[in-house]
Amino acid sequence: MRLATIRTARGPRAVRVDPDRAVETGHPDVGALLADPAWARLAAEAGGPTHHTAGLDYAPVVPRPGKLICVGVNFHAHIREMGREVPRYPTVFAKYPEALIGAYDDIVLPSASQAMDWEAELAVVVGAPVRHADEASAEAAIAGYTVLNDVTARDWQYRTLQWLQGKNFEATTPIGPHLVTPDEAGTGLELTCTLDGETMQTANTADLVFGPATTLAYLSTILTLNPGDVVSLGTPGGVGHARKPPRYLQPGQLLVTTIAGVGECRNMCVTEK
Amino acid sequence: MRLATIRTARGPRAVRVDPDRAVETGHPDVGALLADPAWARLAAEAGGPTHHTAGLDYAPVVPRPGKLICVGVNFHAHIREMGREVPRYPTVFAKYPEALIGAYDDIVLPSASQAMDWEAELAVVVGAPVRHADEASAEAAIAGYTVLNDVTARDWQYRTLQWLQGKNFEATTPIGPHLVTPDEAGTGLELTCTLDGETMQTANTADLVFGPATTLAYLSTILTLNPGDVVSLGTPGGVGHARKPPRYLQPGQLLVTTIAGVGECRNMCVTEK
Repeated sequence: MRLATIRTARGPRAVRVDPDRAVETGHPDVGALLADPAWARLAAEAGGPTHHTAGLDYAPVVPRPGKLICVGVNFHAHIREMGREVPRYPTVFAKYPEALIGAYDDIVLPSASQAMDWEAELAVVVGAPVRHADEASAEAAIAGYTVLNDVTARDWQYRTLQWLQGKNFEATTPIGPHLVTPDEAGTGLELTCTLDGETMQTANTADLVFGPATTLAYLSTILTLNPGDVVSLGTPGGVGHARKPPRYLQPGQLLVTTIAGVGECRNMCVTEK
Repeated sequence: MRLATIRTARGPRAVRVDPDRAVETGHPDVGALLADPAWARLAAEAGGPTHHTAGLDYAPVVPRPGKLICVGVNFHAHIREMGREVPRYPTVFAKYPEALIGAYDDIVLPSASQAMDWEAELAVVVGAPVRHADEASAEAAIAGYTVLNDVTARDWQYRTLQWLQGKNFEATTPIGPHLVTPDEAGTGLELTCTLDGETMQTANTADLVFGPATTLAYLSTILTLNPGDVVSLGTPGGVGHARKPPRYLQPGQLLVTTIAGVGECRNMCVTEK
């Protein structure tokens, strides 16, 4: 099953996205839908107004996650190429909902940064409370997967030891278009990031150091993960900042982030007004 | 004016706290009150049910801030004693609302950490949207001040380069009891942290490297600060981790965090069940 939050003339709506149409569930967005413990049944049985799937205007799949937690340094191949040790613990940091944009929205390159970079990632959406969970319980609490590009202002990320300020420029982080339930998404997913058609990143999620369930279980030792929370699992090699010479996003470029079986974000880079 | 969120038999309520009584404003909490641009007038004119001020059960003053941003390395005296350079930019990281507790609630020492430490801080509560603001506009958007103790699991903080996982253990961070408007709080505030009556930290907020308006203006270059968002300004010297030998919070200890003119949090440390 695929779920999305779409923008309609009557405001945002959660929908189940079938191959031929999108059916409203009666909730304003996927976050509100997931807050109902019966969300899977409600979504499967939804029979509200329908929309043509072509031309849907996608909002961030969960527009305001209670928590949006990102993992860094999490692909084996990338760690090896950097000559680092495989980490013992996940490195985690935060994004705020203000950073999020829909799957086809423009990425606003802030005038304050001259080094905006891409980071294609698989994100997990939480579907039930998770606290002090083992991996099996954490796995069972996964509502589904989506695509996220953790677009980062490298010049701000490295101003201080903490990355947060480089990770949270407003309207820079595409997420969506769909939440895809685990049965449909599968595992060992091919992840690709292209810029104006040139492949910049490619990896398989089987190469993650800390996979979805492991990461959720780890975080649940610290605090409760709640329905609608999003955990993004980190990016592989191929970012612009590590290239020689470095490359950064420019106005007019198209950034495409694809995870096979999950979805694709297609985002034009524009100058901040 | 002083505002608070209290727990009542009918659920949480925002109140204006007068010397002799607390008056309900008609909002479920201070966050909901601040979401109304007319919050200051609504609070000043509030005439709802009243409560005796003695024995009020305080919830976190803003129970679910949209953003809770913390500043590190921000007191001149502490930076000098550590032999560091005065930073050019604020170091910022995130807390999530799950970490928050009320001003007199118990601090739950997690069984997963053996190094829970104190960090007394002055926190700013945002009262109007702030984006690309200069210091004067940022100053004008401050709803008020409150007391926060950024209780930290040092062993988890330093597991990786990013501090987030040490800063977010559930039910560890007191905030409150009151939001005190700037006219009443004043500036140059004495901050004190005691553990079982022994003074651990003392400083004056005049010694902050990045003060309230400077910090808000800086953050507003990155993203919009919204009403109810909280920015905590960092802690001075005297934390347990830097002592020789190190000292950490133990079950049964009373942690008292005081800012003159703003308020006091009094929190008993208890073992996680």
